[in-house]
Amino acid sequence: MRIVAAKKILKANDQVAAKNRDLLSGAGVCCVNVLGSPGSGKTTFIEALLKHFGGRIRAAVIEGDIAGTIDAERIEALGVPALQINTEGACHLDAPMVAAALRELDLNGVQLLFIENVGNLVCPASFDLGEHLRIVVLSVSEGDDKAVKYPAVFQSAQAVCITKTDLSPYIDFNLSRIMADVRRLNPGASCFQVAALRGEGVPAVAEWLAEHLHTGRSDFGHSGQK
Amino acid sequence: MRIVAAKKILKANDQVAAKNRDLLSGAGVCCVNVLGSPGSGKTTFIEALLKHFGGRIRAAVIEGDIAGTIDAERIEALGVPALQINTEGACHLDAPMVAAALRELDLNGVQLLFIENVGNLVCPASFDLGEHLRIVVLSVSEGDDKAVKYPAVFQSAQAVCITKTDLSPYIDFNLSRIMADVRRLNPGASCFQVAALRGEGVPAVAEWLAEHLHTGRSDFGHSGQK
Repeated sequence: MRIVAAKKILKANDQVAAKNRDLLSGAGVCCVNVLGSPGSGKTTFIEALLKHFGGRIRAAVIEGDIAGTIDAERIEALGVPALQINTEGACHLDAPMVAAALRELDLNGVQLLFIENVGNLVCPASFDLGEHLRIVVLSVSEGDDKAVKYPAVFQSAQAVCITKTDLSPYIDFNLSRIMADVRRLNPGASCFQVAALRGEGVPAVAEWLAEHLHTGRSDFGHSGQK
Repeated sequence: MRIVAAKKILKANDQVAAKNRDLLSGAGVCCVNVLGSPGSGKTTFIEALLKHFGGRIRAAVIEGDIAGTIDAERIEALGVPALQINTEGACHLDAPMVAAALRELDLNGVQLLFIENVGNLVCPASFDLGEHLRIVVLSVSEGDDKAVKYPAVFQSAQAVCITKTDLSPYIDFNLSRIMADVRRLNPGASCFQVAALRGEGVPAVAEWLAEHLHTGRSDFGHSGQK
């Protein structure tokens, strides 16, 4: 019974997600859903990319949080339009929330839209928001066993970014182990290492993102559910 | 409609949780539900407490993970009985899962039962498992804004443990800020700072836990839902 209900919710979600994706593709916007644990460094990662792009790429950000506007304020401080979704308890963003946010956002001229999901390595994996690309962010301080423990989210992404690599000297984190697990779970995923506060590794991610922007195609890749 | 469904699920959960708590109280077992993000250091925190108690307190551990048995193997390596629950995708433990686990566990002589929840700072907050005490673990590497962003889990706990404090020199983490937020959200919570790998701060937590053990009462405090 509970499984049927979950499937129904996901089916309804996916229909709205498909509409979001059509809207975004039609507007020439590449939409990136950023997932990761609380404190994995999602906002800092997005900030680093926005700083790297500077004025060269027009970006906007939708911030998903259970409560508060801390992250949206951080993005706006960079001069980038940000819209905060407060889920009021819900543990993930869903496509209807994003549809509502898209009605509020001025997409004119926007090439790149980041959606920062609620900090959660589990539930957001199941909800297509209508993004074109999905990036999972995992910090070295979370440990090298996380792909084995939370496989679904790693399987659903086009890219996996290991963040906070500047903390590696102080932490027992086996990069080879997690990379082997990620490649086994998701052989097609692009993998990056980033120390976002120092800007290290950011250009490689930016280049990968840019490849998905300037083709002018409206049929960007589609993450969806695997 | 979705809210009603959620309430029904929670009500059914709470009925089973109450039975779990009665069973545990009757057996003289103090049950501690440990919550926190993926990689916040829950297992290492439990390991440090088990090492500190040594043979003086008889303990057992229920490990909750979406997949795998990594954590249960770590606990068993210490000579402590461990039982792994695999949620197969679910983002939190619920009371029926724990009820099933309790049927498998030999509680004879056990004074302290840890339940390590699925790594998730959101969903586990809503599910009473039948524990007597709830501890939230937050690592300094997750950032000092997490109480504001994830208030429910901090409000539901009897204790908040800041972990990985040995990383503080390398991280911009404002302890005063998070402590002020926690005290505002949950004035009654006990607060601890721990560097579990070094054993620092562990005795204080152990002493706090021990106070809930050796009273011989069967009416331990009850975390439940606030």
